[in-house]
Amino acid sequence: MLDFIFNPDSIAVVGASAEEKKVGNAVLKNLINGYSGKIYPVNPSRTQILSLPCYPSVSAIPDKVDLAIIVIPAKAVAETLKDCARAGVKGVVVITAGFKEVGGDGVAREKEIVEIVRSSGMKMVGPNCLGVMNTKNKMNATFAAQLPPAGRVAFFSQSGALGVAIIDWALENNFGFSKFVSFGNKADLNETDFLEYFASDPETDVILGYIEDVVDGKRFLEVAKEVTKIKPVVLIKSGATEAGARAASSHTGALAGSDRAFTEAFRKTGIIRASGIQELFDTAEMFISRKIPKGRRLLIITNAGGPGIIAADTADSLKIKLDPMTRASIDAIAEKLPPTASLYNPVDIIGDATSERYKVVLEQATKDEAVEGICVILTPQAMTDVDQVADVVVDSARDTEKPVFAAFIGGQRVKNAVNKLKQSKIPCFSDPTVAINAYGKLIEFAELKKKKISSEIQIEVPREHIEKAKEIIQTLKSQGISEIGGEEAMQILSLYGFSFPERALAKTPMEAVAIAERIGYPVVMKVSSPHILHKTDVGGVKLNLNNERAVYNAFVEITTNVKRVMPEAYIEGVMIYEMVSGGKEVILGVSYDRTFGHMIMFGLGGIYVEVLKDVSFRIVPVTEEEAFDMINEIKASRILDGVRGEKPYDKNDIASCIKKLSRLVMDFPMIKEIDINPYMVFNNGGIGLDARIII
Amino acid sequence: MLDFIFNPDSIAVVGASAEEKKVGNAVLKNLINGYSGKIYPVNPSRTQILSLPCYPSVSAIPDKVDLAIIVIPAKAVAETLKDCARAGVKGVVVITAGFKEVGGDGVAREKEIVEIVRSSGMKMVGPNCLGVMNTKNKMNATFAAQLPPAGRVAFFSQSGALGVAIIDWALENNFGFSKFVSFGNKADLNETDFLEYFASDPETDVILGYIEDVVDGKRFLEVAKEVTKIKPVVLIKSGATEAGARAASSHTGALAGSDRAFTEAFRKTGIIRASGIQELFDTAEMFISRKIPKGRRLLIITNAGGPGIIAADTADSLKIKLDPMTRASIDAIAEKLPPTASLYNPVDIIGDATSERYKVVLEQATKDEAVEGICVILTPQAMTDVDQVADVVVDSARDTEKPVFAAFIGGQRVKNAVNKLKQSKIPCFSDPTVAINAYGKLIEFAELKKKKISSEIQIEVPREHIEKAKEIIQTLKSQGISEIGGEEAMQILSLYGFSFPERALAKTPMEAVAIAERIGYPVVMKVSSPHILHKTDVGGVKLNLNNERAVYNAFVEITTNVKRVMPEAYIEGVMIYEMVSGGKEVILGVSYDRTFGHMIMFGLGGIYVEVLKDVSFRIVPVTEEEAFDMINEIKASRILDGVRGEKPYDKNDIASCIKKLSRLVMDFPMIKEIDINPYMVFNNGGIGLDARIII
Repeated sequence: MLDFIFNPDSIAVVGASAEEKKVGNAVLKNLINGYSGKIYPVNPSRTQILSLPCYPSVSAIPDKVDLAIIVIPAKAVAETLKDCARAGVKGVVVITAGFKEVGGDGVAREKEIVEIVRSSGMKMVGPNCLGVMNTKNKMNATFAAQLPPAGRVAFFSQSGALGVAIIDWALENNFGFSKFVSFGNKADLNETDFLEYFASDPETDVILGYIEDVVDGKRFLEVAKEVTKIKPVVLIKSGATEAGARAASSHTGALAGSDRAFTEAFRKTGIIRASGIQELFDTAEMFISRKIPKGRRLLIITNAGGPGIIAADTADSLKIKLDPMTRASIDAIAEKLPPTASLYNPVDIIGDATSERYKVVLEQATKDEAVEGICVILTPQAMTDVDQVADVVVDSARDTEKPVFAAFIGGQRVKNAVNKLKQSKIPCFSDPTVAINAYGKLIEFAELKKKKISSEIQIEVPREHIEKAKEIIQTLKSQGISEIGGEEAMQILSLYGFSFPERALAKTPMEAVAIAERIGYPVVMKVSSPHILHKTDVGGVKLNLNNERAVYNAFVEITTNVKRVMPEAYIEGVMIYEMVSGGKEVILGVSYDRTFGHMIMFGLGGIYVEVLKDVSFRIVPVTEEEAFDMINEIKASRILDGVRGEKPYDKNDIASCIKKLSRLVMDFPMIKEIDINPYMVFNNGGIGLDARIII
Repeated sequence: MLDFIFNPDSIAVVGASAEEKKVGNAVLKNLINGYSGKIYPVNPSRTQILSLPCYPSVSAIPDKVDLAIIVIPAKAVAETLKDCARAGVKGVVVITAGFKEVGGDGVAREKEIVEIVRSSGMKMVGPNCLGVMNTKNKMNATFAAQLPPAGRVAFFSQSGALGVAIIDWALENNFGFSKFVSFGNKADLNETDFLEYFASDPETDVILGYIEDVVDGKRFLEVAKEVTKIKPVVLIKSGATEAGARAASSHTGALAGSDRAFTEAFRKTGIIRASGIQELFDTAEMFISRKIPKGRRLLIITNAGGPGIIAADTADSLKIKLDPMTRASIDAIAEKLPPTASLYNPVDIIGDATSERYKVVLEQATKDEAVEGICVILTPQAMTDVDQVADVVVDSARDTEKPVFAAFIGGQRVKNAVNKLKQSKIPCFSDPTVAINAYGKLIEFAELKKKKISSEIQIEVPREHIEKAKEIIQTLKSQGISEIGGEEAMQILSLYGFSFPERALAKTPMEAVAIAERIGYPVVMKVSSPHILHKTDVGGVKLNLNNERAVYNAFVEITTNVKRVMPEAYIEGVMIYEMVSGGKEVILGVSYDRTFGHMIMFGLGGIYVEVLKDVSFRIVPVTEEEAFDMINEIKASRILDGVRGEKPYDKNDIASCIKKLSRLVMDFPMIKEIDINPYMVFNNGGIGLDARIII
């Protein structure tokens, strides 16, 4: 796909320079120092640079050029790109800065070069970037001094500076990369393109990245979902701190931040999120073995009690299960271990353990069905034959599909063994806490992978209902109304299968009484006016009315109150509602994220939302499984199972509501926010009490 | 204090051996290789070992011996210790294993040697330990091969294996230690002794440790509180996972685990807890500068946008404040920085920044009153003069009391600068996330230090009330009652200032009516029987009784129900209570931890305790400030401030209740658990509705 960028047959360096310290010199030198394809320096004022013939322009190169690296001033880039297009260049890497990131003219300059690139069919990395690297063909098409060690991890970065630092770090720590790209302003190719390319790259097993935003959220969701089926993706997304919370006119909107949307987008697509650089690489280390655990049961083997307990604590905090091996396995190892050994989990083979004891346990554990992953902890004690233990671990890991990883704690004495393990793709750490945390990410990946298989069952909605909803929305829109209050919102939601209390509009006190008699007491009465959203504030609501007289009086009071407080409001009448009680209040809502689109929200009502902010979100479309996950994810979820002698509330009904909302906003993307608050859920079914829709 | 252990003039090695690979050989060699005091090998079968004259026993040594290292078989240790005592030895390090940790005979053997040591006035490290080290006098009195680098961090470890691993790690990572001790079974000297000693040790600035338990909780609390006033203490406490939750007969008891008690003990004494080895050393790195921030305001300076945002995200998650500098400072740096620089926080001095730009910002920041700490981030870009930046940071940090720390991201290119920084005691990290997390620990330390100054105001209780409570408890105790139910529990608590509803015991239906008339309707009625704890379950409770008839009938019904369900129960009568409503339900309780003693618990009642487990604990004695911290710490605390139009509830009353409970259990240490559940708090005052005390 993007092979002409990472595996070009020929590269032109536009702006190549003979002058030391110039970027055009650094890039050319870096290419000469490793890349074995053809290299063409381009510089109109030279005929030769660093012993290579130099050309005045790309089109002047007699041969075909796959990739052009551009390191000339920003103002000259557009003309050069046109020349590249004429010469049939396939990919360009614009290292040059001075575009969108500087604002002003730069924005226009960036727009211009994107148009040139797109209309010609070329693909562009940058502008304002560090460049690209491929350790396989030794191509260093950047101005960073050295290629990192070769390995099977690809990395993309929105920050060039972070890229430089990470390559320097990788050299020191011998961390191997397959490919590297810094995409700067990502005016053409962006994170999604590289995700797609690295997924198909046979040299890459794990994809890492650093992003600050996502260019096209919908495409990202689609592509990432497929990529994580093939390879793990671990990303840092920075900018979790939203300096100014954006203005939101609904509860749901106020609770949904853009960082929340990223968390949900990553969850939905199976991307693992790392909170920092160290965690990113620790996670990558754990993924490099390419083995995925079947479940949460982990066996810890250790030659030291303390580190074993530390590992167990961490496992426990991540809900990783430390089940012991089967009885048969325990009996089998008991015979071969000293009586002071602890046979359960962690298996403590005691400080004087040699590699033989590790072997005994590992051989049993790899074939024990109660073990789904193995953590080998070692401290370099007097009797410990560290290197042989590493050999034993390598041998055992070779013959099993279960992930096996190690925490060899120490420095000089474990160094050689650690290298042995890493060469055999056994993840190895120097701290049991870090090791288990990284394993937690592997389990997260395994579980997200399983989940994604669940299909996206859509709610069926009759065509005429959709048409009717469309009509209502368009009518309101044509009246310039963007906040749709109670009655109309209920109508729209009813068309999508939501229930609301029986209700009717009364224009006179007598009509109110007649309606109340029909509905049955007690009733609730609320003023109906297109101009009033907060009805309680103007004395426009009366609850629990039990007889004719009360209803009659309430009508008079409500209209009098409203006329006094808001004399300019048009009063259509008073709505009479069946009074609903006895269920559990929940809130259902929809918010809109500018990157990923609609998210559905769920939470328990009242204090749980307002004080504890105990809510869950999922990006639309929400699947059956996601809907139930949303319900079970909130901390207070057990309340719905029925506490203090209550019967369980109807989770199926809530899940169905979530799917209805998902369908509604897919049919009407112009909807920005919805609150159904409160929604009363019963032991069987549920009913909305109030609703608002913002378009 | 323990100088004869860490700075002895002379050392005897009992069990010294000429045979390679023996522990007695390793220890002797290690001493010879560094320690410059007198060394006396002791071994009855030799006259000379490694060119040193060898003695048959410690008492045979013609000179005075400060310290004896014991590496002979367990069975012979007792006799040797007696010999040491006779010879006037001050300290012994028993490396030998085979004591309490092996169970059986070992337990008795350990008891015997402790008695010998204690009666002689010697002090003992071990048994079953690695030994002690002092990098200052180059004494390696362990069987680990090498001393770690010298530095100003002391370390104690309950795990010898972890000690070995950490020394190996320190050698590789050039992390400096002042003193090291592995105390194994800690039969005599334990964590508290070493805390105390390291606090007074002029070679030590920071104290680290690994513990699995604490020997004497009360003494630990007292000593640790004083130590942290002088030096930071960072500990790993493992064993957070309590395999079997211990049987608890109250709500409070069930919510208080032993790990919770450790968390509270650390908080109370100002100890910082680390969750793993890497975090322990990262935290130590941050503390080594010995500078304490005045507040939460941190300025971040960076030459790369991405890492700056990552650092800001981490700071935000820890509630570290990223306020900008004052207007004057911003104007001052604006003049000297390029227009594309970002002047707020993080201050981004852009990728081409040289040390000069770092200097401009640092000089301003160190004198700006809005800055309380400074984080310097560097990525090694083309123009970055990494070493000079380090020099600038060192210079700036020298002249300020504010903590200055660095995140230099990279490997080879930043290595030299990182060493420079570390030599000047500037904490330096390779990951901004790790750096900010460690800074969070420093802020935690600073804030705990401030808090501890608050005095421990005790509640006054009249002497006759204490006497009366004593009488009630002793009477119940003499009757073999350990669970004190409603009436007696209320009586005891009332003596300590708690309010309970007006109430009286009725023996007949007519008496019940008379009492209800006196108290005023509505009333609550509950069966009174020493044999019934769960009154509702046997139909023994009636609520909201509004008139004579209802009270009369309730008496009959309650007694009939109870007689039917529990015919064997003795019914004293029925209690009539004033019915209380309209407050906010909270729960107040006491639990008992075997290490640290009583803890007071607070939470909101019902769902908040049962489902969300949203409670706070503090170890007794609870100070005024701690009582308010307990109230404000729970997640739902805002509910007490009044939500949805409610007035604020009386936090002063709750705080006063907490202090009353604290006083009560200090007066009566035999109390194991208390539940006051529910306690109704009003806008002014509060009242308990039910109480249980377990003795």
